[in-house]
Formats: sequence, C-alpha cells, structure tokens
Amino acid sequence: MPSELRRMLQQVRDGAMSVDAAAAAIKAKPFEDIGYAKVDLHRNARQGASEVVYGEGKTAEQIAGIVAAMRDAGQGDVLITRLSPEKARLVSATTDLQYFEVARIGVVGSIPEPDGCGTVLVATGGTSDMPVAEEAAVTAEMLGNEVVRAYDVGVAGIHRTFAHMDDIMGANVIIVVAGMEGALASIVGGMAECPVIAVPTSVGYGAAFGGVAALLSMLNSCASGVSVVNIDNGFGAGFLASRINHMGKVGA
Amino acid sequence: MPSELRRMLQQVRDGAMSVDAAAAAIKAKPFEDIGYAKVDLHRNARQGASEVVYGEGKTAEQIAGIVAAMRDAGQGDVLITRLSPEKARLVSATTDLQYFEVARIGVVGSIPEPDGCGTVLVATGGTSDMPVAEEAAVTAEMLGNEVVRAYDVGVAGIHRTFAHMDDIMGANVIIVVAGMEGALASIVGGMAECPVIAVPTSVGYGAAFGGVAALLSMLNSCASGVSVVNIDNGFGAGFLASRINHMGKVGA
Amino acid sequence: MPSELRRMLQQVRDGAMSVDAAAAAIKAKPFEDIGYAKVDLHRNARQGASEVVYGEGKTAEQIAGIVAAMRDAGQGDVLITRLSPEKARLVSATTDLQYFEVARIGVVGSIPEPDGCGTVLVATGGTSDMPVAEEAAVTAEMLGNEVVRAYDVGVAGIHRTFAHMDDIMGANVIIVVAGMEGALASIVGGMAECPVIAVPTSVGYGAAFGGVAALLSMLNSCASGVSVVNIDNGFGAGFLASRINHMGKVGA
Amino acid sequence: MPSELRRMLQQVRDGAMSVDAAAAAIKAKPFEDIGYAKVDLHRNARQGASEVVYGEGKTAEQIAGIVAAMRDAGQGDVLITRLSPEKARLVSATTDLQYFEVARIGVVGSIPEPDGCGTVLVATGGTSDMPVAEEAAVTAEMLGNEVVRAYDVGVAGIHRTFAHMDDIMGANVIIVVAGMEGALASIVGGMAECPVIAVPTSVGYGAAFGGVAALLSMLNSCASGVSVVNIDNGFGAGFLASRINHMGKVGA
Amino acid sequence: MPSELRRMLQQVRDGAMSVDAAAAAIKAKPFEDIGYAKVDLHRNARQGASEVVYGEGKTAEQIAGIVAAMRDAGQGDVLITRLSPEKARLVSATTDLQYFEVARIGVVGSIPEPDGCGTVLVATGGTSDMPVAEEAAVTAEMLGNEVVRAYDVGVAGIHRTFAHMDDIMGANVIIVVAGMEGALASIVGGMAECPVIAVPTSVGYGAAFGGVAALLSMLNSCASGVSVVNIDNGFGAGFLASRINHMGKVGA
Amino acid sequence: MPSELRRMLQQVRDGAMSVDAAAAAIKAKPFEDIGYAKVDLHRNARQGASEVVYGEGKTAEQIAGIVAAMRDAGQGDVLITRLSPEKARLVSATTDLQYFEVARIGVVGSIPEPDGCGTVLVATGGTSDMPVAEEAAVTAEMLGNEVVRAYDVGVAGIHRTFAHMDDIMGANVIIVVAGMEGALASIVGGMAECPVIAVPTSVGYGAAFGGVAALLSMLNSCASGVSVVNIDNGFGAGFLASRINHMGKVGA
Amino acid sequence: MPSELRRMLQQVRDGAMSVDAAAAAIKAKPFEDIGYAKVDLHRNARQGASEVVYGEGKTAEQIAGIVAAMRDAGQGDVLITRLSPEKARLVSATTDLQYFEVARIGVVGSIPEPDGCGTVLVATGGTSDMPVAEEAAVTAEMLGNEVVRAYDVGVAGIHRTFAHMDDIMGANVIIVVAGMEGALASIVGGMAECPVIAVPTSVGYGAAFGGVAALLSMLNSCASGVSVVNIDNGFGAGFLASRINHMGKVGA
Amino acid sequence: MPSELRRMLQQVRDGAMSVDAAAAAIKAKPFEDIGYAKVDLHRNARQGASEVVYGEGKTAEQIAGIVAAMRDAGQGDVLITRLSPEKARLVSATTDLQYFEVARIGVVGSIPEPDGCGTVLVATGGTSDMPVAEEAAVTAEMLGNEVVRAYDVGVAGIHRTFAHMDDIMGANVIIVVAGMEGALASIVGGMAECPVIAVPTSVGYGAAFGGVAALLSMLNSCASGVSVVNIDNGFGAGFLASRINHMGKVGA
Repeated sequence: MPSELRRMLQQVRDGAMSVDAAAAAIKAKPFEDIGYAKVDLHRNARQGASEVVYGEGKTAEQIAGIVAAMRDAGQGDVLITRLSPEKARLVSATTDLQYFEVARIGVVGSIPEPDGCGTVLVATGGTSDMPVAEEAAVTAEMLGNEVVRAYDVGVAGIHRTFAHMDDIMGANVIIVVAGMEGALASIVGGMAECPVIAVPTSVGYGAAFGGVAALLSMLNSCASGVSVVNIDNGFGAGFLASRINHMGKVGA
Repeated sequence: MPSELRRMLQQVRDGAMSVDAAAAAIKAKPFEDIGYAKVDLHRNARQGASEVVYGEGKTAEQIAGIVAAMRDAGQGDVLITRLSPEKARLVSATTDLQYFEVARIGVVGSIPEPDGCGTVLVATGGTSDMPVAEEAAVTAEMLGNEVVRAYDVGVAGIHRTFAHMDDIMGANVIIVVAGMEGALASIVGGMAECPVIAVPTSVGYGAAFGGVAALLSMLNSCASGVSVVNIDNGFGAGFLASRINHMGKVGA
Repeated sequence: MPSELRRMLQQVRDGAMSVDAAAAAIKAKPFEDIGYAKVDLHRNARQGASEVVYGEGKTAEQIAGIVAAMRDAGQGDVLITRLSPEKARLVSATTDLQYFEVARIGVVGSIPEPDGCGTVLVATGGTSDMPVAEEAAVTAEMLGNEVVRAYDVGVAGIHRTFAHMDDIMGANVIIVVAGMEGALASIVGGMAECPVIAVPTSVGYGAAFGGVAALLSMLNSCASGVSVVNIDNGFGAGFLASRINHMGKVGA
Repeated sequence: MPSELRRMLQQVRDGAMSVDAAAAAIKAKPFEDIGYAKVDLHRNARQGASEVVYGEGKTAEQIAGIVAAMRDAGQGDVLITRLSPEKARLVSATTDLQYFEVARIGVVGSIPEPDGCGTVLVATGGTSDMPVAEEAAVTAEMLGNEVVRAYDVGVAGIHRTFAHMDDIMGANVIIVVAGMEGALASIVGGMAECPVIAVPTSVGYGAAFGGVAALLSMLNSCASGVSVVNIDNGFGAGFLASRINHMGKVGA
Repeated sequence: MPSELRRMLQQVRDGAMSVDAAAAAIKAKPFEDIGYAKVDLHRNARQGASEVVYGEGKTAEQIAGIVAAMRDAGQGDVLITRLSPEKARLVSATTDLQYFEVARIGVVGSIPEPDGCGTVLVATGGTSDMPVAEEAAVTAEMLGNEVVRAYDVGVAGIHRTFAHMDDIMGANVIIVVAGMEGALASIVGGMAECPVIAVPTSVGYGAAFGGVAALLSMLNSCASGVSVVNIDNGFGAGFLASRINHMGKVGA
Repeated sequence: MPSELRRMLQQVRDGAMSVDAAAAAIKAKPFEDIGYAKVDLHRNARQGASEVVYGEGKTAEQIAGIVAAMRDAGQGDVLITRLSPEKARLVSATTDLQYFEVARIGVVGSIPEPDGCGTVLVATGGTSDMPVAEEAAVTAEMLGNEVVRAYDVGVAGIHRTFAHMDDIMGANVIIVVAGMEGALASIVGGMAECPVIAVPTSVGYGAAFGGVAALLSMLNSCASGVSVVNIDNGFGAGFLASRINHMGKVGA
Repeated sequence: MPSELRRMLQQVRDGAMSVDAAAAAIKAKPFEDIGYAKVDLHRNARQGASEVVYGEGKTAEQIAGIVAAMRDAGQGDVLITRLSPEKARLVSATTDLQYFEVARIGVVGSIPEPDGCGTVLVATGGTSDMPVAEEAAVTAEMLGNEVVRAYDVGVAGIHRTFAHMDDIMGANVIIVVAGMEGALASIVGGMAECPVIAVPTSVGYGAAFGGVAALLSMLNSCASGVSVVNIDNGFGAGFLASRINHMGKVGA
Repeated sequence: MPSELRRMLQQVRDGAMSVDAAAAAIKAKPFEDIGYAKVDLHRNARQGASEVVYGEGKTAEQIAGIVAAMRDAGQGDVLITRLSPEKARLVSATTDLQYFEVARIGVVGSIPEPDGCGTVLVATGGTSDMPVAEEAAVTAEMLGNEVVRAYDVGVAGIHRTFAHMDDIMGANVIIVVAGMEGALASIVGGMAECPVIAVPTSVGYGAAFGGVAALLSMLNSCASGVSVVNIDNGFGAGFLASRINHMGKVGA
C-alpha cells in the first residue's frame, strides 16, 4: 500500500493524475458493494489464496450472489464456511460447488497442490469434535497445505495419543481440536516442538458450558507454544496454520 | 442411632428411664456449647478417627478453647486445618501442638500408624500446588494412611508424569492436585484403575480465574473414575481418600 | 504394562523378537480404528467389566458399528449411554439390545451378578432427577453392584430423607442426585459414614442456571466425604461407585 | 401522604395557604441537606422506629454530622451499620454511642422493649457467620423484637440443627444466616411454619465465590416460605423480620 | 411433633404401644409412595391449606395419579403449578380441574374465602410479566387471600406507578413482579410500609440474561423491607405472601 | 408538569375546581387501561413524536387492540417493534400497517419529514448485524431523522471503514452496530467528533456469548464519546439518536 | 482531514511539496513520542477543548513529563483524571496544578466559562457515588458546561428524587451515577426528556458484584433515551455530556 | 525419542545393555529432583534455547537453587519470569543475574544474537500494557529474535496505529498486547499478513473484569490469522513468536 501511495503521488506531481482523482483513489473502495455485502475484490492478490465467505446467517441467494460477484471480478477460488447441506444444495443449483458435509464447507474452484513447508497435523480428542476438525483440515487443504488427521486420540486413553507420537514430532504446525476438558492441547503441547493452535469445541454437557471449560483449559495450558482461537473456530485455526506453514516460502 | 433409640425406648418401657428423660435425651445435644462453637463430642466414637477444627476465621483463643473442650471430653487427637503460622505459635503457648507449616495443619495428639488397605498417592501438577497437596497428605496421614507424594509431575513434561507410572498403578486411592488447566487429573485418571480425587487449586493467573479453569477441566474429565472437591480443598480430599482407603477394613 | 514391557525386552534379548517388532509393539495401538472412532479392544481385560460407548452425538449406524467391532473382538458386554429411544430402536434392528428408557441406556450382553462389597444407594431429591439417577443405577448394576434406590427424598420434607436412614447407614457407597439447591448431598453427607458421590442435575429453573446452583452447593458441602461429578453425569457416578464398591475384592 | 395532600388542598381552598406555598410544600424536602447527605427527618414518624445510617464509605466525621442533624431534628434513636471499631471510637468522641463489635453496629439512644408479636430466631450454619447474624439480631432488637440466637447449627451435624427444633417451631420469623452451600435455609425452611429470611454470607473459599454458592442455593430452595436478601445483608434481614414480626400490631 | 413424640412415649410407658411399634412410628413415613413420587399426606393438617404439585417435568398421568392419591387420603384441595394447557386438558379427563391458563395453574377443589389479615397486592412492571404475576396471585387466592392486581405499572412511566399509591399504602403484603432492570421493586419498596416480596422474571433480552439483571437489581435494592425469590417463582412469592398475611391469625 | 400543578392549584383557590377533583386529578391516570396493558395517551404531546409498542410477547390481537386504543385517543403515529412477519400479517388484517421486514418494525401512520439538526449515521460491522441496524435506522426515520447507512464496514478490512470517512465526519450522531468483538465502535469513536451510540449484537458464536463480548468491548472502549445500549437494542439507539439529533431545535 | 489531504495533494501538483515530503506527511505522527507515551499534540485544535491524561498506572514523573510536553507544544489546558492525592502533590511540585480531591482530577490551566447549550445535571443515588459523580461534573465543567449537582437522591426515598423534578425537567443532558441496583437511571429516564447517560458505580457489596448489578440494571432500563458507560467511568460520562451539550453550537 | 528407543533396543539385543537397565532407562527421569521442584535437564538440548523458571510463588532461595542445579548440569542460559525486584535483589546475591525491571525478568547467562527469520513486532494499546509487552519482548530477545517495539498505538487515535504501518507490514510475527477492549488485535490483524499473537492484559477497570473484556474481544476477532494466549501472558506470546520466527531455520 505504501508503494501504491507513492506511485499515485508521483503521478499527481507529473500531471498524470488529477488531484481529485488521487483524492478519490486514496479513498477508493477495493470492494464491490452488492447491497447486503461488500465483496472484497483484491484480497486474492494480497494473499495468494482463495477468498472466504462466512455462510452462517446468509441466505443461499446471498451466498450465490457474493460468489458470482467474486468470480466476475476474476477471483479464482472461493471457500464458503458454515454452509448447511440445504444451502449447499441451493447454491449448487447456480454454482459449480464441491461440498464437504462434515466440514460444512463449500468450495468453488479447485483445491490447490500443497505448497507449504511441512505438514499440518489436525488432532481431536473425540469423535464428536470431527466437524470442527474437518473445518480446520479442509480450510488448510484449500490454502495449500498437506494435512494429517489424527482423530479420537483423547487423553482418557493416553496410549491413543502416543500412537501418534511420530505425527506429532513430524508436523510443522499442529491443530488440536477438543471439547470437554480440552487436556489434549496440553499433552500435545508438551510433546511438540512446533506451534500448536488449540481449538476448544462446544462438545460436552453440564459444566462444559458450551466450550468454556475447554477454552479456559487451553488458555491456561502449562505447555509453552500453545495459542487459542474461538470455540468451534475450525476455519480460524486452519487459516492460521496455513499462514505459519507457509512462512519462509517465497511470496508467503 | 436406631439401636440407641430402641434401647432408650426399652428403658422407658421397663421404667428405667422416665418419659421426660427420654424425650429430652432424644433431643439431647451430643456436643458442648462453648459460646462461639458447638464442640462435637462423640464424633471420634463414630468414626474411629481424630476430630477436625477448621482454623480459618477463628481466633487463636477460640481454637485453643475448642481443643481444650475436646481434650476435656476425652477426645484423643485433634486436627486443625488452615492454621496460619502466627495462630499456630499462639495456640502452642497453651496446647501441645505439632505444626506442619506447608500444610498449614496443626495436630494435637499423635499421628497414628497407617491402617488403611493400601497407599494414598498425592500428585501435583507444579511446585505451587504443594500447600494444598500437603494439606491432603497430612490429613490422610493423620487418619491412618500411608501416603506417597509425587510433586511437580505436570503434563507439560509428560515424561515427569510417566516417571511415576508405578506409583499410579500401585496406589489404592489417588489425589491429584493441580491448578492452571488441571489436565493432570485426566492423564492420571486415564492411567489409574483406582478412584481418583481431583483437587483444583487457585494456582495460576488471568483466565485461571482463581481455580475455576482447573475446576471445570476436572469436572469435565473424559476419564472415568474421577470426582472433584472444592478448589484448594486439600483436607476434603485427604478425608475422602482415607475413607475409601479404609473400606473393607473391619470397623471402617 | 511395566511387566509387558519387561517381557518384550527379554524377548528381544533372547532373539525371540526383532528390534523392529518390539519398537512397533511398544507403539502398537490396542484399539481398532474404524474410521469415525478408535474402538478400544482390551479395556475389558484391564477392568474386568463391560465396555462403554457414549451414544450422544453418534448416529445409530456408528453405534451399531462400534458394537459390532467390539463383539467381533470378543468383548463380552457393552454399555451404551445417552441413547435416545429412536436410536435404541434403530440399533436394535441389527443388535441384540436391552434398553432402559428412563436411564437412556442400552445394554448388549447380560447384566452380571452383583459382586461388590456392599450396596450402592442411589438417592434423589425429586422425581425429575430420576433419569440421571437411573443412569447411575443401571451403570452400577451393569458393573456388578447391588443397587438400592431412594427417590424423591429431598430436604423440603426432611422426614422423607430420614425415612431412609437405614439405607443411608447401611450403604457401602452413596450416590446423591439432586438439582435445584442440591442440599440433599450435605444432609446425606452429614449422616453417612461411607463415600458420597454427589451428582448435580440440570433440574430447576431461573437461578438454578442449568445445574450450576446444585453444583456449587455440592462443591461447598460442609459435610466431609463428599465429592462431585459433572452436572447430569449419572454414568460417571455409577462407574466410580462401582470402583469404590469393589475395593478390597480380589482382582478389583 | 394522600391525607396530607388533601389537607393542604383544603387549606388552599380556604385561603389558609397560598398557592405558591402549597406548590412548594408538595415538592418540599422532608430531609435536611447537609452537603454530603440528605438526612431524612420524618422517617421515624413514618415507621415508629429508629433511623438507620449505613456507615460503610462514610467518614467518622460524616457519620457524627448526620447523627447530630438527626438528633437536632428530634429523632430519637439512630442505628449505624457497618461501623468499624476505629470509626466507632471516633464517633464516640462526640456522640453517646453504644457499640456492638461483632455486629459492627453503633446505637445512639436506647434499645427499646420488645413489642413484636413473637420471637425472631437467628440461626447460623457456622461460627464464621456470626458477624452477619449479629448484624441481623441487633438490628431486630433495636427495632423492638425479642431475638433467639442459634449459632453453629449447620447441616453437616444434622443433630445440631434438630437440637433447636423447639426454637424453630416456636419462632414467629426465622433468619437463616449461612455461607458455603447454604443448605441450612432449606432444612429450616422444610421444618418451619413461619416466614424464613435467608441471608447468604461470603464465608467459604474456592467455589463459594464470595457467597454466590449460598445465594444460588437459597434462591433455589425447594422449601416454600423462604425468601432471600443480599449476601452478608444482616441489616436487611433484621429489618424485614421486624416488619413481619410487628404485623397485626396496632400502629405497625 | 414434639407433642406427638411425648404422647407416643407415654403410650410406650403405659404399655399401650409396643417398643417396636413406637420405634417404627417415629420413623414412619407420613406419605404414600406411589413409585414415581412420595405423596405427602398430612401437610394439609400441618398448614391448614391446600396441597401443591409442581407440574413441570411430570406427565399428565403422573399428575393425575398424585392427585388421586391425595384425594383418596382425604386431602381437600390441590394446587398444580406449571401446568401446560395440554396437560391440563389431559388431567381434566380424569379429574375435576379448574384451570387458570395465564397462571398455568390447575386447581382441584374449591378456592377458599379469603381469611388473611389484609390484602396482597401483586404489581408488575410490564404486560409480559403477567404469567408469573398470575401464578403468584392465584396461589395466594387459593391459600385464602384477597388479591389486588396492579399490572403494567413499570417505572418508565412513573405516573403509572403512582396511580396505584393507594393500593401500595393499603396492602398488607406486596409482591412485585418485574423483568428487565427490575427497578419497580425499589420504587415500591421505598414507598411501602409492609413486607415486599420481589420476583424477578425472565422477561427481557440481551443483557437481561434470562432474569439475572432483575434478580441482581432486586437483591441490591436500596429499599429496606424487600426480599427476593427465584426468577419466575410466582408460586413461591404467593405462598410466602399468604404465610405473612395470615400472621396473627388464630391457627396461622 | 409543574405548570399543570400550579394551574390546578389556582383553580382550587379560585373555586373553579373542587378539592376532591384536584386530588383525583393529581393522581389521574394519563393512560387508558385496556386490561392487558395501560395505553399511554399523551406521550405524543410530551415528545412530539410517535408512540411505541414493544411487540415481543404480545399477541397480534393485543397489539391491534393497543393500536386501536391509541388511534381512538387521537395518537397520530404508532411504531411497533419486534414484530414478526406472522404477527404483522395478522395485525394488517385490521390495521393499516406499513411493515419493514428486516427491521421487524410495523408503522401505523406516516413517516415524517426529517426535522433533525443533521444526519444519523448507522454503521454495522457485518451483514448479519443488519436486522438490529435497520431497527435503529427505521426508528430514527420514524422520529424525523435523515439516516445514512454504512453496512458491512467492519475492521477486518479497515479500508472498508475508511471508505466511509466522510459519512463519519459529517454525521451529527452515529450508531455503531456490531457483534463478535465489537471493535468498530472504538475505531469510529476514535475518528468521530459527535456522540457515538454503540449497539452490541448477538451475532457471533462460541466466546461471543450472545453479544457479551461485544458489549464488554464497547463498554471498555478507549475512545471517548461512546456510550452503550443493551444487546440488540436497535430501537433504543435509534430513539436516543433522534433525541440528540433534535437538540437545539425549537420544541425539541 | 480530507481537506488537509486535498491541500497536500494540490501542493504536490504545484511543486510546493515534494513527493517524499507528502508521503511522509500523510504518515506523519501528530504526536510526540516521549518514550513511555505518545503525546497527542493537536487534539485541542480538533476538539476546541482541553487535553486529557489518564493518571492511573502512570507515575507522577510520567504525568509531569506528559504535561510538560503538551504545554511546550502550546496545548492550553490539561485534565488529569484518576490522580491520587499523593501523585497530585508530587506533580504540583513542578506543575501549576489545581486539584479536585473528591473527583481525583488535576487541572492544568484554567476552567473555561460555560459555553454549552444548557445545563448538565449530575445526579447520584447515594453519598458513596460522589467520587464518580464529581469526576463527571468536573470533567464537564472543564469542557465548558454549567453543571447542576443533585446528590443522594436515590429511589429508596422517592421524595428525594422528586424534589429535583425541576432540575430534571430543565436539564439539557443528565448524568445519573448510581451503584447497588442502579434504579435511579430508570426513574430519571422515565421523567426526563433529554439524553440520559447512566454511570454504574462499584458502590455496594455482595451481589452488587463491583458494579455489575447496576450496569445490568442500566443496560436493561425500560426507559428510552438512556445509554450507559463503563462502571465508575465518570470522565467518559462528563465528556459525552459535554459533546451533546455543545451540539448546535457553532464550532462544536 | 523414537530413535533413542530404537538405539536402546539394539543395545539390548547386542547385549550392550541389560534388560533391567533398559527398562529403567525407558522410565528414567531426564530431570533432577531437588525436593521442591523437578529441574528439567535436557530441555536445552531439545530446543536449542534457554531454560525458563516461573518465578511467581517461588522463594528467592528456591529460584537460586533451581538456577544452581541447572548451571551445574551445564545448562547455559536461564530465563526467570515474574521475578519481583525484591526477589531479583536476593537472587543476585548468589547468582550473576541481569534484571529487566519493567519486564520483571531475570536472565542468567547472555542474550543471544538474533537468529530468527525476521523481526518480531510487539505493539501495545497503551502505556499501562508495557510490563506485559516487555515480558514478551525480552523473552523473544532471549530466544534469539530481533524485536521491534511499538507502544501506545491504541485505536482511540487510529493515526498512531497507522504511523506503524511499515512495522506491521514488515514484521514476521506480531504480538499485540492490549487491555480494555482489546480492539488493537483486530485492527492489526486486519492489516497484517503474518501470524498475530494477541495478549489480553488486565489493564482497565469496571467491566474490563481483569482482562476478560480484552480476552473475549480477541477471541472473537473478525480478523483471520489471530490467536490468543492467557491474560497477561507475555512470556507465552514471546515464546510462541520465537518458535514461529525460527520456522524454516535449520535446527529450528
């Protein structure tokens, strides 16, 4: 952005751009306003990755409209999160959509070849954490990462966790997805030597308080190198894991 | 108590006890009222163990008074919990007191020989959990249990936990004392085959919320066989562990 | 486990086992991975009791699949908790299932003869606490315990509680199930001389906060010998009660 | 007040009072403004009882000033709550003050003869609840009630509670003061046939959360006839108990 | 109860009652156990009022069964709270039931003539608080009280509150029912000279937190003479109001 | 009101009004009691604006009844908030209603010409905040304000926020509607030089806690000049904005 | 700012400013970095009012340093909030400071003549709310407002509130400062016809939860036209009141 | 660790190691037990970085003892966090300690040359956040990172934030430290293209709730690429930032 600013100012000085045009351009909106949303049109360029639409609370029509606006503007790939099967079916009517049901993710475009530095390990405490884990995993795959899955490896059967020791030691980034008491994040964090992203889930009942127990547990992890995202935020974990996994890559 | 009731009623029938005396006796107070407290005088008989005084919020004078009343009534041993060093010094002036500073426990009388079925293992996540752990351990010892201590074995260095595998497998009851995220309870609970009593501690800062994070973590433990007592309640854990450890013993 | 390790190492030394085989075996998974779950295959051996499946959040198909894998592996009895009537009906189509509707528990196999040291008393504050109480009671029965039920004995009519004085004094372990203010745990805890497991329930409204009032009440019980499990966690209480009730038994 | 209004209007009609005077009088302040406080000057008349000053957060000078203003205006008796020993000493320098240290109450004037309908029973769960209980008891005494005290009768030793059965059955109003799990309110509420005012106290630690556990427990009491005041609000309970205990009395 | 005890003991002494019979009687259950509930059979005698069944969480069949057991035992009137219209319709099929739809109360038997000392005023902040207010009002009426209703008199239009000044000044007991910020309790409490029972309701949204805002507001009321019951607990308020309103009455 | 009081008193003095009539008038109800509600009949006069009915928790019949009573009393315009489409359809059957579906507002009467001092800017963080924003916007329009909308300008794409810099600098009052972390309020508050009303919304999931995260964020805004209304309270924000926007206007 | 941008661009075009200078200026820091703080140097110009320093958590030296930097840069008046008496004394040693002890505010420079549109009324529920109220009042005075104080007018003595009816009706903006249940905001909000800013205070105990009860009460106020600032945030209320009170003024 | 295991097994096979020795070694403790702590002795080897001691809750003597044990075992550098000035002075008596007072960190050994991939930017919202920020910054420096500091750049003066645009765009990892509403994390997260670690601080008052407001705000950040650590956990952020900043480095 600073370089763009400088270039514009040079054009003003050189008379190649009027003062009014420059003033307008500086305030110019790099997005299209389609009424119910402002579609961001050059984020792709900025990040070398696909665009993301948060499907919750949007109608199928709105989602299809946003996707169309993006495609019209030349955006290659679009990732739609929190997309229910019903909406996916409706969007598919007008859009070429690949749908991942467990992850509740719709993909417009193609899934890229992995180009990250290493693997992203996605581990879950139990079977019920799978939707959140898949949201993280598919997100990471869509952003160009090789993903290894280790599901249902919770600490109540610690031998299950240890069976994945090699995956843990070999990963470049680890996403730990767990509800209930969320202890898996501390165990993995104590064994791993790479960044660990902890995702509390709303799995559990009673004093799990919809994920609060796991959230607090993860925030207080005695293991260093662990950070936390919002309850059930698989997308955020996958996005951040990808960003970390592409560090050191040219153009990352 | 039912047998006492029956005996009294027989005495009434036989004329050995007046109606008024019986009515009074049934309502009779098995404790001495010394103004600021009602000193329980036959709990010892009921439980074959020492009497307990909760020292917090009582003055040294009150504590000494309660102990004197108990001793006068023939109570053998007295355990005083949450006894600060200052109060311990003051109580010692008039009472023959053995003081355990880390545990903040004062003992009047002698520590009995262990007569439980097995060992009670007390494990802590970190060094800061020691006061609560010692409260549990000394309580259990005072109630006739052999105690094994495994401190600072938190999950951030999982090898530390595993170094105590034999202690865990060999214990008859386990007390897990941990603050922060309290994950140790789940790990130990997943490995142990005996009852596990989890004690959350107020160790930690920020989102530990004075022990709430550990408390919730322990309540949501995915390991079966784990139950929880109040934050920092070392005494309660030691008392319950002793009760369990004496099951199957004659007179337990 | 230590003994298994030693035996393997001896086999390596004696040439009866290759280094690679031993390294693999140490990391070997004592469970079958059937995609959506890792079915634990020798827990039965470890605990001399039936295997448990948490039915919530699993489809009837998944449950049936897990049960089939267990049975194929020679697991005798399976306990399925949080099993709705609809799922029970579906699972029954392919599995020989005994269903306890109030407890929401399905049992594959037979209910064993009681082999615990004494009786497990399950008491509730009110009628609405029955589903959680039955989950605890059926679990304990499935794990080989004689269970005595005392329902609707809440403290608002203290004579109802006292009518069960003999049950309370005679039990080996007591499970107290109560919602609202959960005072029953303190009353029973004050009368009993055996371990008391308190189960707060989500019964109540307004400031009951889905079981939080009862949970806090129980955690702060002024009676010693009381510990607490998660809100509505009847299974956990039944499991722990069984473990305690089998202490002192050979092979427990 | 309606009668005063009518009288004033009649005076206006009869010319005995000017319009301006009446308009002013209707808005007139029945209190003296002494800068830092508005001293209420005819509450005594309204309620036939002593005036109350909340001492917390006021300096000894302010308290003395308020008392002086009241006495100057002819107010007979003044009750000062939450008065620390230091402030009491300072106020005593200029005011004839009777100080109740445990209750932290200062009284200017005399304690009246009891003129209520029956007795007010003040019961506490433990010794540490005494300051709040005394605040309630002294308040009730100052407002003309006969008070019966039953302290340290908590439910962990249920026989202690029952030893006061006659007091409970004979009281006209009962104030139950308890911290920790506050179960005493439900037990007493289940036995009593008169109104029960429950006062949660901040006694306890850990998950007592400064009185929240007791507060929630009391609000959810399964016993009918129980209502609750703020944590540690002994004054409020004593005041309300007095109001109830004077019902049916002429002039109450 | 003490008198009953004495009489029984006299019978034992006189040989009119065997020891076993007496021992049994003392522990005798003054209720009928009908499986899913313990029906209290002499509460009527104890309190000179109708019996109460909490309808929530009970099936129509269970409710009808409990009512039948009561009627068979000679209980005159029964009050069923939290009774949905559907259940009321079902219960009506087998029971002669009078149903108050807004109050969600079913009455078996007749509504008694008022025999309290004065009137019970039930005031609400808004229209939405009516179901809870009616639960309180009908309860009080069923227990023999004359009830005055003042609905929708919230403080946002303070003139609406003042329009009921006479009702407030003339009541013997006041029940204030309010959600949102619950300020009505303080206003009425500041004007009234009789006991005020505050009932927070779950009316409101956002930071009303299901009645918590009103609950806290009422607990912290700066007006003396106000006590609080659980959120939405209209029955509890009506019951307590009746108890207070009958004080001083012979047999109350 | 003071002037009315004075005038009445003068009439009393002059004999133009009887004492009884004046006493009655002073207590007179400036509203009509239609059973389920007290319809305020001269608020319009007081505020020169339309009357408001809160539709939530009222039946369509009740709403229609209230509107009819208002119209009969000469109230010009009525604003009905939280009106679901179903209720709107039902009310429309008997009332001439203009319905704003996104805002969930029904309007009886006409929308007035803007007569405020400047514009009211309504900005939202995301698309999902639109219903609350529209409730604010339509309310403000109904009360005579020119409204500028800037939706989906959240801080994750800060250039979107800045694209509305002119709107922000030019507004007379700003309403910021945001869920999730609510940071938009601080950003706008840091740029604006007019009063900013922040409306947290319940948009978000997990640790958004139904709007609590946004609420706390807004209350702690480091920007001066920001105040907050209840979660999702678009009406309150629109009403307050209108009040501020009419300051300095004659008759405001 | 837009006009500045345009002017700079014109200078670039005209050669009066180099491209580098313009690019730098656009990013230029309108503040001085003195190490521990970034002192804002042209806020005065932007808002025609004094600069504000938040004294909490800053040493007296840091405060004096910031003030000196401001004065050196030509800033006229400085307002220092949350300034303890000790720090005020230390700052006074090097700075010409006027200190308001109750408000904990220090003023460098002179207090301006009021130039707002009307008066700002500051009302408090009790005496203990005075520090927060004075922070609001002195802030408003320093920003050019005439302030009317009405302290200790809480609703428990509603006649005290009404004694200030004229102040309420005559104010241009009202600040209501109240702790405990915070009902004053609703009462005043129901009577006033101007914007009301509610400031919850941390005054109270027990379930006041440090101001939470008042905060929730105010957020849920049933009176329209009320908005809320943070607990104890007197400065924020005074600042916002001033902003509103200067609306319609030239240069406001 | 797998490779060590394999090597040991080979030695057993080859007779170079006895079975007992191997079994022992596998369970061997890679730490020294010095009574109050288990000092980890080869973490340095594992992570190529200095060892860390958490100073809070440890006495100066304990800290000195742990450091001595580490140094004796050949550990090069030790980082002591949460070290108060008093303890630092005491530890210095026996240990060669470099003390960073604002960061509350003591360093034994030397600060290494930066060897990370890029710079770590540490930004704070205000001056009061500096202690936490310095804990993060010094930690990162001690672990071999070049740190850029941008303090007091909070969003209330958004131009302050933008003045650091180049730092934000140029950083390899960003740590955002903010209290109050924590909005800085979202702003920076929206501008940055590298991982952002958000650290909520306990700075603030009232509804900041000791950092909860900032924590929730950061967890709900609408900006992708942001993760969160515990309140005030500067060390954790610095450690994680270093780990990320060394990714792609040989031996990282």
